[in-house]
Amino acid sequence: MTTDLARRTADWLERTLGYRCRDAELLVAALTHRSAGGDNNERLEFLGDGVLNCVIADYLYRAHPQAREGELSRLRARLVRRESLAAIAARIGLGEQLILGPGELRSGGFRRGSILADAFEALIGAIYLDGGFDAARAAIEHVMAAQMAQLGAVAELKDPKTRLQEYLQARGLKLPVYVIDQVKGESHQQMFVVSCDIPPLGLRGTGTGQSRRAAEQEAADQVLAAIADTTARAT
Amino acid sequence: MTTDLARRTADWLERTLGYRCRDAELLVAALTHRSAGGDNNERLEFLGDGVLNCVIADYLYRAHPQAREGELSRLRARLVRRESLAAIAARIGLGEQLILGPGELRSGGFRRGSILADAFEALIGAIYLDGGFDAARAAIEHVMAAQMAQLGAVAELKDPKTRLQEYLQARGLKLPVYVIDQVKGESHQQMFVVSCDIPPLGLRGTGTGQSRRAAEQEAADQVLAAIADTTARAT
Repeated sequence: MTTDLARRTADWLERTLGYRCRDAELLVAALTHRSAGGDNNERLEFLGDGVLNCVIADYLYRAHPQAREGELSRLRARLVRRESLAAIAARIGLGEQLILGPGELRSGGFRRGSILADAFEALIGAIYLDGGFDAARAAIEHVMAAQMAQLGAVAELKDPKTRLQEYLQARGLKLPVYVIDQVKGESHQQMFVVSCDIPPLGLRGTGTGQSRRAAEQEAADQVLAAIADTTARAT
Repeated sequence: MTTDLARRTADWLERTLGYRCRDAELLVAALTHRSAGGDNNERLEFLGDGVLNCVIADYLYRAHPQAREGELSRLRARLVRRESLAAIAARIGLGEQLILGPGELRSGGFRRGSILADAFEALIGAIYLDGGFDAARAAIEHVMAAQMAQLGAVAELKDPKTRLQEYLQARGLKLPVYVIDQVKGESHQQMFVVSCDIPPLGLRGTGTGQSRRAAEQEAADQVLAAIADTTARAT
């Protein structure tokens, strides 16, 4: 990578995530998909995923002093799921910065959600290594400010099943049916897998939890998130 | 809580996790199980879980520069699983510090693994709020040093399926059979649930992954962890 290109990449990062990365190699590694061969961003993605989860947990803990643990978990899952991260990555033009192998280039890998989301997490990992935890936190809060603010409004908040029911009722649609797909584990620590189909919207959510109710709430939350995505795309 | 008791609790934390907590209320909250009513440790557990995962990710990233993302994920899962955290909590005498409701007290809740592991995570959350990320990291590395060092030896490391196979062969036992229990999701982002039974040892592992191979590795790793637990208990 020429010095010139390295500087332009660092400029892009500073413009979009508000952080000036000192280590150009780290930044290149974060942007390198495994299809390009050599050092790639998979290890940085692992690290960045941990940093991101921690920063979001901290943010939610402080922003929602009344929320219970289950609610905090749901809000976090919504912020860090692949689709949300891919949307942020697309907004900041991460796809154009990606270093891909020829196969992925031809097949449009720079637009694929999973590649974008992974590279976004890898960037967080690189910033963490380059500048420490507080630098990573500042970058995350900078780039995710809109998502976090939107969550504030959602989180005043009836539980997901209630909100989904109200959404469907307001549109004259049939109420959702929750189906237990699987029960795992022994009786004192069971895990429930529940799904929820909304045929008129062509949507489906799946949730996992230590109680049937928790799994249903997660499934409903997935459907709500999908509805929100569809709405955002349409506007 | 009397000042005297608060001081003794802070002393215990400093002795075991190497951190002097300034906020006594936070420390009490971290030690309070929901059975005791009022403020409890569930929110702090959510926060501490995020901090712990991040610190362990950072540690593994640095300690294993050659390990791939899948290996790092497996090592982390092993360090932070409930049984490991409960064992640490038991070692530092966390059970005696717990504030439980009368029902849990009578039924021996201070010895229950899930209650101990949750309270341990809540303590990490409290230290993070009280002293920041670096304080939490230092406390985690202090109290988990033995686990981390032990992992170093494990992690030179053949993959879990190979190690499990070698372990069983060395004891003249039948090789494990991996069974796909479930395939979820659409074709381009499937999730595999695989189980692995070892009847002569009465052990079973379950793994989830985006490929059959990844799920099998996780299932094998679970069995290996259970073998390690059994061995540790016997010595």
